[in-house]
Amino acid sequence: MNAQVKLLLIFVNEADQFHNRPLYQAIVERLHQLDVAGATAQIGIMGFGHHMRMHHKGLFGIADDRPVTIMAVDDEARLRAVLPAMRAMVREGLMVLVDAELIADARRTS
Amino acid sequence: MNAQVKLLLIFVNEADQFHNRPLYQAIVERLHQLDVAGATAQIGIMGFGHHMRMHHKGLFGIADDRPVTIMAVDDEARLRAVLPAMRAMVREGLMVLVDAELIADARRTS
Amino acid sequence: MNAQVKLLLIFVNEADQFHNRPLYQAIVERLHQLDVAGATAQIGIMGFGHHMRMHHKGLFGIADDRPVTIMAVDDEARLRAVLPAMRAMVREGLMVLVDAELIADARRTS
Repeated sequence: MNAQVKLLLIFVNEADQFHNRPLYQAIVERLHQLDVAGATAQIGIMGFGHHMRMHHKGLFGIADDRPVTIMAVDDEARLRAVLPAMRAMVREGLMVLVDAELIADARRTS
Repeated sequence: MNAQVKLLLIFVNEADQFHNRPLYQAIVERLHQLDVAGATAQIGIMGFGHHMRMHHKGLFGIADDRPVTIMAVDDEARLRAVLPAMRAMVREGLMVLVDAELIADARRTS
Repeated sequence: MNAQVKLLLIFVNEADQFHNRPLYQAIVERLHQLDVAGATAQIGIMGFGHHMRMHHKGLFGIADDRPVTIMAVDDEARLRAVLPAMRAMVREGLMVLVDAELIADARRTS
């Protein structure tokens, strides 16, 4: 009964750069420009990924190479349409799509 | 073999209020009162959503309008039962349900 | 067309210990040792879980008992293979597996 949507999860590092600015900022702003319904970026305290280095807040004094997880929500067509733009930006990160059911909000059902 | 459960993800803003207190706090406490098995609230550093304003930590000095993601876990019946209460609280946010498989914990299998 | 993978979500508390160190650190390092493709740990500001105590940042001055969410990504076989190790470490936490579709990265498709 509720609409099927997708979550797009993108895993990058806080220190990753895109045109001389933080990659995660560039990604969230690009998703906004591309009219994706919503997105958030969250910084983690510890993580590892593709290049298999362990990151930890404060470890070795490297406080700015923490993992950042970006989560976007929209219908499948919209999210698949932004994947080429995301692929061009996310070189060392990881991206996954997850099925989700949109719970209609109060404004739409009332 | 393992139980099927659901994740309920709710996306709001840190500055959203419910009866003169932070909405995210009201949501987590309501989920607790309604006996949902578990829930967490995480603050992001950047995001945008329904009302299509871009939020960023510290941007324009607005440090308190960051995105907050609430994640609750329980079986489907329990989470669907709390949706009316959540809809009444989450006016500008977004809610989705995601399928998950509960991994039985050590206490139950030993 | 894209590979199916899984997300493993583990919910613990910041104050949980494993062999006299933070449990979440031990979990992320164990996932790394077991060659899981990627993992992140994120600290929340509020939450509750199995033992049904409400946690809140700064509440009662307890700043270190916040919820921690660990998210790992890999193919299903790899993640199921690490579950026994995770079960042995996560005594009071909650673990779930979620289906996801891996979006091939730029390096692989170019």
